[in-house]
Amino acid sequence: MTSQKEPQGEFSTLTKVTGPSSWSRVSCPCCISSHIEPLVLIQLAESVQPITKQWIMSMISAPVKAGGAQLLVHPGEDMKGDMIVVAAPRCTLLRVTEDLGLCKTYQDGNMTAFSFDDRDNFCNIDDMKKFLTLAERQYIVKYELDSMRAIEDQRIPGIPTPKGKLKARVSILQKLEKAGVIRNVTPLHDQKLLTALGKQWYSQKSLWGQPLDSIHAYFGGTIAYYFSFLDYYTLSLFPPAILGVFITFFLPSANFSSGNKTDSEPTALKDDDDHPSVSSYMVQAVFSMLWSTIFMELWKRRSAALSYRWGTFNLAEQFQEPRPGFHGEVGTNPVTGRLEPLFPDWKRRLRMGLVSVPVVGVFLGLVVMGMAGFYFCERLVSNWHKGSGSYFTAPLVYIPSIAHIVYTNVLGNIYRNVALQLTESENHREESSFDYHHTTKVLVFTFFNNFAVLFHIAFFKEDMPLLRKRLASLLIVTQVVNQFTEVVVPFLVDRFLTSADRNLKEDDPEVDHLQAQGSLPAFPVSSTVLYSQISRIQELYFSYILNLVPLQGLFAEYIELLVQFGYLSLFSCVYPLTAPLLLLNNLTEIRTDAYKLCKLFNKPFSAPVANMGVWQLAFEVLSFISVVSNCWLLLLSPRVKELTQEAGLSSSQILVIAVIVEHVLIMAKMILAFMIPDEPDWVRIKREQIEFHSMQALKKQRIKSSRVDEKLPPKAKMGE
Amino acid sequence: MTSQKEPQGEFSTLTKVTGPSSWSRVSCPCCISSHIEPLVLIQLAESVQPITKQWIMSMISAPVKAGGAQLLVHPGEDMKGDMIVVAAPRCTLLRVTEDLGLCKTYQDGNMTAFSFDDRDNFCNIDDMKKFLTLAERQYIVKYELDSMRAIEDQRIPGIPTPKGKLKARVSILQKLEKAGVIRNVTPLHDQKLLTALGKQWYSQKSLWGQPLDSIHAYFGGTIAYYFSFLDYYTLSLFPPAILGVFITFFLPSANFSSGNKTDSEPTALKDDDDHPSVSSYMVQAVFSMLWSTIFMELWKRRSAALSYRWGTFNLAEQFQEPRPGFHGEVGTNPVTGRLEPLFPDWKRRLRMGLVSVPVVGVFLGLVVMGMAGFYFCERLVSNWHKGSGSYFTAPLVYIPSIAHIVYTNVLGNIYRNVALQLTESENHREESSFDYHHTTKVLVFTFFNNFAVLFHIAFFKEDMPLLRKRLASLLIVTQVVNQFTEVVVPFLVDRFLTSADRNLKEDDPEVDHLQAQGSLPAFPVSSTVLYSQISRIQELYFSYILNLVPLQGLFAEYIELLVQFGYLSLFSCVYPLTAPLLLLNNLTEIRTDAYKLCKLFNKPFSAPVANMGVWQLAFEVLSFISVVSNCWLLLLSPRVKELTQEAGLSSSQILVIAVIVEHVLIMAKMILAFMIPDEPDWVRIKREQIEFHSMQALKKQRIKSSRVDEKLPPKAKMGE
Repeated sequence: MTSQKEPQGEFSTLTKVTGPSSWSRVSCPCCISSHIEPLVLIQLAESVQPITKQWIMSMISAPVKAGGAQLLVHPGEDMKGDMIVVAAPRCTLLRVTEDLGLCKTYQDGNMTAFSFDDRDNFCNIDDMKKFLTLAERQYIVKYELDSMRAIEDQRIPGIPTPKGKLKARVSILQKLEKAGVIRNVTPLHDQKLLTALGKQWYSQKSLWGQPLDSIHAYFGGTIAYYFSFLDYYTLSLFPPAILGVFITFFLPSANFSSGNKTDSEPTALKDDDDHPSVSSYMVQAVFSMLWSTIFMELWKRRSAALSYRWGTFNLAEQFQEPRPGFHGEVGTNPVTGRLEPLFPDWKRRLRMGLVSVPVVGVFLGLVVMGMAGFYFCERLVSNWHKGSGSYFTAPLVYIPSIAHIVYTNVLGNIYRNVALQLTESENHREESSFDYHHTTKVLVFTFFNNFAVLFHIAFFKEDMPLLRKRLASLLIVTQVVNQFTEVVVPFLVDRFLTSADRNLKEDDPEVDHLQAQGSLPAFPVSSTVLYSQISRIQELYFSYILNLVPLQGLFAEYIELLVQFGYLSLFSCVYPLTAPLLLLNNLTEIRTDAYKLCKLFNKPFSAPVANMGVWQLAFEVLSFISVVSNCWLLLLSPRVKELTQEAGLSSSQILVIAVIVEHVLIMAKMILAFMIPDEPDWVRIKREQIEFHSMQALKKQRIKSSRVDEKLPPKAKMGE
Repeated sequence: MTSQKEPQGEFSTLTKVTGPSSWSRVSCPCCISSHIEPLVLIQLAESVQPITKQWIMSMISAPVKAGGAQLLVHPGEDMKGDMIVVAAPRCTLLRVTEDLGLCKTYQDGNMTAFSFDDRDNFCNIDDMKKFLTLAERQYIVKYELDSMRAIEDQRIPGIPTPKGKLKARVSILQKLEKAGVIRNVTPLHDQKLLTALGKQWYSQKSLWGQPLDSIHAYFGGTIAYYFSFLDYYTLSLFPPAILGVFITFFLPSANFSSGNKTDSEPTALKDDDDHPSVSSYMVQAVFSMLWSTIFMELWKRRSAALSYRWGTFNLAEQFQEPRPGFHGEVGTNPVTGRLEPLFPDWKRRLRMGLVSVPVVGVFLGLVVMGMAGFYFCERLVSNWHKGSGSYFTAPLVYIPSIAHIVYTNVLGNIYRNVALQLTESENHREESSFDYHHTTKVLVFTFFNNFAVLFHIAFFKEDMPLLRKRLASLLIVTQVVNQFTEVVVPFLVDRFLTSADRNLKEDDPEVDHLQAQGSLPAFPVSSTVLYSQISRIQELYFSYILNLVPLQGLFAEYIELLVQFGYLSLFSCVYPLTAPLLLLNNLTEIRTDAYKLCKLFNKPFSAPVANMGVWQLAFEVLSFISVVSNCWLLLLSPRVKELTQEAGLSSSQILVIAVIVEHVLIMAKMILAFMIPDEPDWVRIKREQIEFHSMQALKKQRIKSSRVDEKLPPKAKMGE
């Protein structure tokens, strides 16, 4: 307990030590404050010269007009150290809050888009810690750092010429990162808040009711949305889990083979598919369709309500500065009138349609080819082995599997780079749009990789018992692996490595180590740095076990949920125990994810977002595909085939009937989706109110400005 | 020529006669004008007492606050006559222009949402005839008449109590129409403009380049959109028409049987499907997919450009008064703060999902059952006839067809009423939303009625030669019928009936007739009234011939295009001459529609709209279905079946391949649709500019209003 309290104590000491005096000066009188909160840590390369550090610090504290970020900087230990601590003055925080389009509580109690000029009418405006969440303050600092741009061509002091040249309008932070001057930019943990959050979150006894608002405040939008969804999803798994258990154990004639049973005679299994199993198939299929639709529709409502609650329902990203990586000919933005790089939309669309999509298609083709090659070689080798009957040929049987794993991994790694480069070349203006398209690319590939084999078994081999076995083993194996990697390994790492680290903090060697990293010994940030190294090892380990491309934190978590959801909605009628297994998995998943995030990872920057982004779409598409998949699974089930043969229907008539059933189900799904509005009424009304009032305001403003215009010469009017 | 000029002459005389003196007074000084333009004619029932007429006139001219329409009224001949002529003062026109959210040219040259307070900065503000189009002025009058609502419970003078009771908040116009007091409300033709438009439009020699702006100015948004689309569609038919002609006449081995050839041996036809016909099938199918996608995407761009040009891209229907038929508990609209009936959205969605959709589904089921019954009876009767061999049973063969026609007609008539009542009960707030859902209902049914037989032949019977024959005969027969009903009949009617009418105008009996209708003899409106009677007969005639539910003007025109487009995109690979035939048809269609609208029908009220509404969706859905349809047609073609049998593929493998091909094509279609932006860049920029400026303006306005608030006591702030 003492060791846990200590860093926090040190932290508060530090804030006192590094009081206003040692921070850069503020020009604005309202921003002068006795207490400055360190928000973000910039880690420099060890080789960086003091003159470069000085220059970086001066740029960060320079006003926006001079290309700076108008933030507060602190040199850490001394000017030679390889770190810079950044804080934000009140004015900058408020200005960027307006730029981002964040909504805050207005004096009338409504969430209202913040406006700097109107700041006095917002609640809590005097206390930045109450007005903005920690995550928002840190994101604002990052936003400001990202938007530092060179005003004119210049040289970065202390860096040799080819690397140190800085062209006008180039993002300074990106340039410094590329030149290797800046190693890392991370938000700082607030140990006091973190401990409180952890207690509420993963140490509590109750199974539900995560402290979503606290998560949002501490970790920010994207992460809060993930946990909200996880929470909601877990709760929603109860109905299908109950149905699954009921079908498996209480419907006596539905003899589903359990996943663990190693059955060597597939024909025996086929005989098990007697009449009631068809009806349980159908119940599962229809239920799965209804459930997935209602699930997604209610989530959308919840998501809209959360986005109002968190003040992100009115984000104005298209009117902000473009993201740092955006490039194009500099010109005047016709909408905002700002000078910024411009890139025509049709070019982007052309690149997406004619380059990105075909390239992704080729990679998906390569996955399919790999699978086909694997099956082909396997048959070849096993025939050969059987033919020869020799013991020497036995190891050869494993060659196709090994080759396939290697192939998949190599392909995955190549694809990861290709996807990033494709998205870069699409040159998205907004960060969210970049993320959206990058995530989509990786997502499609990962998903395809995961499901190609199952689809092959289901629709080409039409081997339902094999599908059932494969599904069961996938669920159980991945679950065991997950439990191990996500619970046991982190726990051990935390217990031994971290405790060691904590104990060492008081001793010389660890202090040396921390000082060598350029951090003040008292800064709790050090452990973050160490964790980030551990997490890198861990990530590699995950990727090895899960046979996934090494993915970034949240992406990996989401794709895990998505793949699970896929097992459930696409194939659950084959293996009804999917839902109960997933429910068990998720109950632990919530805790371990929370623990991992709080204890084992760097605190990430997390942008304010209005929804789950591309993941919402992915889940919806999946629940749409599930209707089709369930229909065809039903059609291909041996029992239904027999029935239709008995009824004397031709194959094309069956086809037509199946298509009709499929379309009726899709229609039903769409009607259901339509009947549940995407946002609660109260959110819709708030949104429409804003729309209405801004329409009115625009008209009023025009009158005002035209009255002002009358005093100006006619030429000046054209600028409006 | 003299007879054509005359009504126009009379018209201008009338305006002089009915100068400012005989119109109701205007209170507003800016609205006093020496020339008042009569815009709308209200026809009363003949039995209406002068006191009722007096009351209606006083309500129309009463200010909005007193529940009136603030318009100008003229009693026609005298207070006993059964007509009221309505005009609009400048202030009312401008106020409603703002309410509707119409955009007009601002002083800086941009289209800007009109604002009454800022009126002096808009171009042409001094001349209402230039500022607003005729159609807009007339629509504004109708809008104002529709929004007359009783302020309190009262009695309509001169009408017996049960009918004459008027409850508070009830729409006065609707009440009067229901009580049979008002027979008709029609906009007046302006003969001078109409003659000029007609010359430009249907009398010109060139085939393209319709005067869209003039059409928009004279007839209004919905009609202008129809003609824009028709124009665009006809032009777009050239590529498929050329391909169709090429495939039919220049590909020697593709022996398509022409539509007229009565071929009694279907087996002989099947042998014609030799190898190249498969490839021409495929070329047609792929081309049709590409063409329909590009066609719709480019239309969307054109539509967006037109909507900017016509100032309707920023319509604010949700903030207007609800439509007259809207009912609900009276309350304060949370968005606009106005007192109006409120109806919860979830109730509407529930009614749609649980009542409307199932009922429509039942009717579609009845269509299918009717068709199945027809086929069953036909087989039964023809077998019986063959068995008996007697001449007496021969007429029985026609019974199923006749029964089917009667059944379809009866069903159609019932459905028409049901669709209207369903939409009424859905209680839409906006007129456009009502139209949307009503049109969708009728559209789905009509479309189903038209295509059920073709789909049955294509996918159940799988009889391609029959499909080809049926398609050819449908195209040729409907075309001949259309040409006859749309060109010959209107021409004859116009020549004989109308000329007679024109000659009679100078003689006593016709003047008597006109006076009996309550119209001044000099009013050119009379012919409009007569035309409306003729058009009613004509409509019945159309409906009889076309075996359609009697449909209203524009709907019938659109559905004709849609059904044609369906023939083309769904089945064109079977009969490549579809496109050339459609092209021929459309070239005459443009002229005859224009002629009909100008000469044979009442001038309709036409709301300002931003796009084609539901029709755009309908065309898009159809072009989506066409991908699926073409795929399956290809799969079902006998030659492809042989090929797959030769290749030794199992039926389910073929199925999977077909599904994959289908999905690849759908993907390609979606990518293509994505790559073509839905609106031209310049429209997008204008839209975003408005969005950005209103966001800014809202913030600025809040500051202003909060400064005003500071002077008010704290309680008053809550109302904001």
